[in-house]
Amino acid sequence: MLIVQKFGGTSVGNLERIENVANRVSRTANEGHGIIVVVSAMSGETNKLIEYAEHFTKTPDKKAMDFVVSSGERVTAGLLAIALNAKGHKTVAMSGRQAGIRTNADFTTARISDIDSTNMKQKIAEGYIIVVAGFQGITEDGSVTTLGRGGSDLTAVAIAGAAGAELCEIYTDVDGVYTTDPRIEPKAKKLNVISYDEMLELASAGAKVLQNRSVELAKKLNVNLVTRSSFNDNEGTLITKENDMMENVLVSGIALDKNQAVVTVRGVDDRPGIAADIFKALSDENIVVDMIVQNVGQDAKANISFTVPQSELERAKLIMQRFESAGAITTYDTDVAKVSVVGVGMKSHSGVAAKAFTTLAHENINILMISTSEIKISIVIGEKYGELAVRTLHEAYGLGK
Amino acid sequence: MLIVQKFGGTSVGNLERIENVANRVSRTANEGHGIIVVVSAMSGETNKLIEYAEHFTKTPDKKAMDFVVSSGERVTAGLLAIALNAKGHKTVAMSGRQAGIRTNADFTTARISDIDSTNMKQKIAEGYIIVVAGFQGITEDGSVTTLGRGGSDLTAVAIAGAAGAELCEIYTDVDGVYTTDPRIEPKAKKLNVISYDEMLELASAGAKVLQNRSVELAKKLNVNLVTRSSFNDNEGTLITKENDMMENVLVSGIALDKNQAVVTVRGVDDRPGIAADIFKALSDENIVVDMIVQNVGQDAKANISFTVPQSELERAKLIMQRFESAGAITTYDTDVAKVSVVGVGMKSHSGVAAKAFTTLAHENINILMISTSEIKISIVIGEKYGELAVRTLHEAYGLGK
Repeated sequence: MLIVQKFGGTSVGNLERIENVANRVSRTANEGHGIIVVVSAMSGETNKLIEYAEHFTKTPDKKAMDFVVSSGERVTAGLLAIALNAKGHKTVAMSGRQAGIRTNADFTTARISDIDSTNMKQKIAEGYIIVVAGFQGITEDGSVTTLGRGGSDLTAVAIAGAAGAELCEIYTDVDGVYTTDPRIEPKAKKLNVISYDEMLELASAGAKVLQNRSVELAKKLNVNLVTRSSFNDNEGTLITKENDMMENVLVSGIALDKNQAVVTVRGVDDRPGIAADIFKALSDENIVVDMIVQNVGQDAKANISFTVPQSELERAKLIMQRFESAGAITTYDTDVAKVSVVGVGMKSHSGVAAKAFTTLAHENINILMISTSEIKISIVIGEKYGELAVRTLHEAYGLGK
Repeated sequence: MLIVQKFGGTSVGNLERIENVANRVSRTANEGHGIIVVVSAMSGETNKLIEYAEHFTKTPDKKAMDFVVSSGERVTAGLLAIALNAKGHKTVAMSGRQAGIRTNADFTTARISDIDSTNMKQKIAEGYIIVVAGFQGITEDGSVTTLGRGGSDLTAVAIAGAAGAELCEIYTDVDGVYTTDPRIEPKAKKLNVISYDEMLELASAGAKVLQNRSVELAKKLNVNLVTRSSFNDNEGTLITKENDMMENVLVSGIALDKNQAVVTVRGVDDRPGIAADIFKALSDENIVVDMIVQNVGQDAKANISFTVPQSELERAKLIMQRFESAGAITTYDTDVAKVSVVGVGMKSHSGVAAKAFTTLAHENINILMISTSEIKISIVIGEKYGELAVRTLHEAYGLGK
């Protein structure tokens, strides 16, 4: 079968590690599979090149920047091709251009528009292992672009979709997706399989194994994604489309996010459009709002609470001043933690939310905000209770077994 | 006018030097000229990448090698474009591919087959400064190649020819071409102008300012070549086609080469084809023979002397053993120096050679071999007399004035 294997910056961080990657790819090739490898730059290289560029100006020309930065992945791709050729595998290195990766012209944050996989398919048919420089493509007029953060993962998923690969393996320095952060709960277990949607909810709740853009693309292209470690032979976690088996599992994981701040607005007129006014103002400034809760307080005045990343709180405060002059009373709280319970099983089982509230109450943890989706319950609590909440919920849903 | 400016590895050796190059290019642009810049990799980068590749095998796959090594020039080109953009100049960086440089498929030592300058000409017409990554091109099927040693100079000359540039400036760490090596003769003077052929003879005689391939290409494409320093504003040396003015100058320069060895073969039958046998055998092994002298000795036996680079002497000895078994007596001498007197003026002036012999005789320097071309006299002498010969000949031809 055809497999795409993607190795991140840590996995190709030095020459010995590239040699290890070559051994792993070689083993998969010897099992008779067709392989397209996608690589990142050696860790530290991209930052070094960005530093070089910023020596000349704090705002380097983005097109020239992409021309510079894209070279990091090319070096890794060429070196890995050399290592594989030395092991007797016919191997060819390809730039984004040679792999047929077309993007729009948003330099430094380009989006893949389509992939012409003719060249790759031909080389695979001729028995070549292909090593593609990740994170890059070219515009219609042939200029080099880069895809922004997580770009090499995106390259791998998009290639897997275009070339019809049966599997897209993303190698990192962790074993896969866990029921929760093992640094918080040592009993956390690695998940063998999880749905795209669960992965998306876990990722946005703070479990940063994969970037959401890649998971969303895998879901769209129906690519079977595996995340696993390049430093051992443990099986990873398969991220795939939802199936009946998954629904038997009530809850897949618990995530913790301590980087949110809660903004509460009291005393605004409870009229249609007031929420829209606030969130339009925030969105105009590109401030990402996560949870939103609104209820009616005293005197037909509305209370609205929402969370924003702590890093964007100062900018949010500036915007909220506009509403304060219209009588709103605004308070801010950064000593908060968001705990999320994620699982497709909760769609068909009642009582999952109730169990979360009971569990936290039993530990005397006060709930500040609640918001739910079909497959997720997010609860905001005092920051100092974050780890305790994760551990007790992990236990309550039987995830450590 | 349109000017090509090429900056070598030392001239772009660190970020400060790239900034200096940007200042120089900016100045030329502000004078109203169209500019195509060609850059090498930052000094040390190419060797670092080669070392990386050789970590995996002593004989890295050449195609993958070119994929890796070509990235060094790309980084410099992108960084220089960033620096120039930051100074307010519309600037675009181009790879060999984007500059339209097509080569054959001899990876690591490719030759430029043609240049499609459409893209460059259009960008120049739109007011852009173009910065091209030197040393590289692509094959017909889109694979990246590199041009081998001196490849960035070749890129610059070929682009100057294809784009119809009035001038091709090669910036290095020396001021230009001198009448002789200033480390040997402090009275050596920089030449303002010299013909292609003189430059070729001086280069092959040991004055390595420019590689012969670049000078030959400049001659073929009729490109006006200037070699000058990137570290000061001194005028350099113009290398151009021969003109009447040049013939008034008897001798342009004296070169010294101490890396040759003399091979003398005595006692071979003086029959047609004997020299051919010897030199075919050497050429089959890619041993470069420079001077060849033959005369008839006693008993109708021929004496043949020739020079080879000292680094190839051991291989030459192995080949000569074949002729020893046929009765030839072979001797070798590495304690030699080749002194060359070069100048187009000697075509129309007699007595130039005689003056050389007289001058050396006056210093009691014994001549071992002589060979002459239209514009060069090469003399092999004892190694220890090399510098003395250079200084006295420099004086005799009045070059220090």
